[in-house]
Amino acid sequence: QHFIFCVLPFMIDLNWRYATKGFDANAKINASDIQDLIEVIRLAPSSFGMQPFKILVITDQDLKLKLQTASHDQAQIADCSHLIVFCVNTQTSASDVDNYIDLICETRDMKQEALTTYKEHITGFVNSQSVEMKIEWAKRQAYLAIGFLLYACAEKKIDACPMEGFVADDYDEILGLKDQGLTTCVLAAIGYRNDVDKGQFAAKVRKPVDEFVDFI
Amino acid sequence: QHFIFCVLPFMIDLNWRYATKGFDANAKINASDIQDLIEVIRLAPSSFGMQPFKILVITDQDLKLKLQTASHDQAQIADCSHLIVFCVNTQTSASDVDNYIDLICETRDMKQEALTTYKEHITGFVNSQSVEMKIEWAKRQAYLAIGFLLYACAEKKIDACPMEGFVADDYDEILGLKDQGLTTCVLAAIGYRNDVDKGQFAAKVRKPVDEFVDFI
Repeated sequence: QHFIFCVLPFMIDLNWRYATKGFDANAKINASDIQDLIEVIRLAPSSFGMQPFKILVITDQDLKLKLQTASHDQAQIADCSHLIVFCVNTQTSASDVDNYIDLICETRDMKQEALTTYKEHITGFVNSQSVEMKIEWAKRQAYLAIGFLLYACAEKKIDACPMEGFVADDYDEILGLKDQGLTTCVLAAIGYRNDVDKGQFAAKVRKPVDEFVDFI
Repeated sequence: QHFIFCVLPFMIDLNWRYATKGFDANAKINASDIQDLIEVIRLAPSSFGMQPFKILVITDQDLKLKLQTASHDQAQIADCSHLIVFCVNTQTSASDVDNYIDLICETRDMKQEALTTYKEHITGFVNSQSVEMKIEWAKRQAYLAIGFLLYACAEKKIDACPMEGFVADDYDEILGLKDQGLTTCVLAAIGYRNDVDKGQFAAKVRKPVDEFVDFI
């Protein structure tokens, strides 16, 4: 009789992760991990479940170099394994709500009539928003999703650099997003850190708990 | 000689989670899990590392009932174990940048002079933003952080309902946020699902991968 004792980590260590600036340009993320990470982003919750965004997964080196010039020449864009571009819908409309309701009916084998009130509710919301408000709403959803991605990367010990430092108009132009009713929202360069990237050795800077949280 | 073979789950199953509407009002999250979840939120990355938001962790039942009336009477607010309110800064200014630079110097034992360029860079960004832009910027960061929270909850098999359906002005009033330069951004009701909540039995509705992702 032998007791097999196995301690599972209760939670991953988020102190391991940091915004990686120096990637090992030769270290590539394998296809199965990429598939998992895409699934994580796809499973992230969103407002009404509408998912008003999509992602581009970029590995083409020529394209990465073009995007690098639209990202203040930051090395992460060229050296990362995969560049994930979060693009948000610029013109969410009642027809997107129709498509979403269709998707619910199909997925859950429901009749349209069962969702009439819900559909009116979402359509009312969408129609009440200005173009700018729709874009900001969509961006918030994409940020929640990039949170999911970054957490999952840490879980897999894959390095990531979330990036806001890029020229969105240039990205939209290079990637042909405007005609698709999309605009670039936020990026994650992912891959594996090199041995010398300074950030990995620096203490994490965060507000102390007593400034950050109130218990009521 | 015995081989001890232990299969670790490679990633958590995000299909387990769903936006929980029906909580078991008697099931409370223990203090150590709450501490872990707060730490997850605190460790979430943010723009420049500025963390332009804070959280309120609410368990006071009278207060929850007041907030419920400001949340279209949704049951989650009353029945959850802890209500996490994400509040964003409404007036991020150069003095917040000063405080942040001080925090970096303190945490990393650095001299202010080493960060002059970085400080100018962030201050320039902050000063270039209108009040509305600053709030939207802060909200995006809070959404990334709620993404971290929801992922960590799933990891711990703690249920959560992310919520946008509340009257922000009423929340700000009830919680006295305006005078603190804060406004309510988004909520997470967390706790444990009851046995009958319908959502747990429904198939997850998500866009198919081929509509959601482009590989380039």
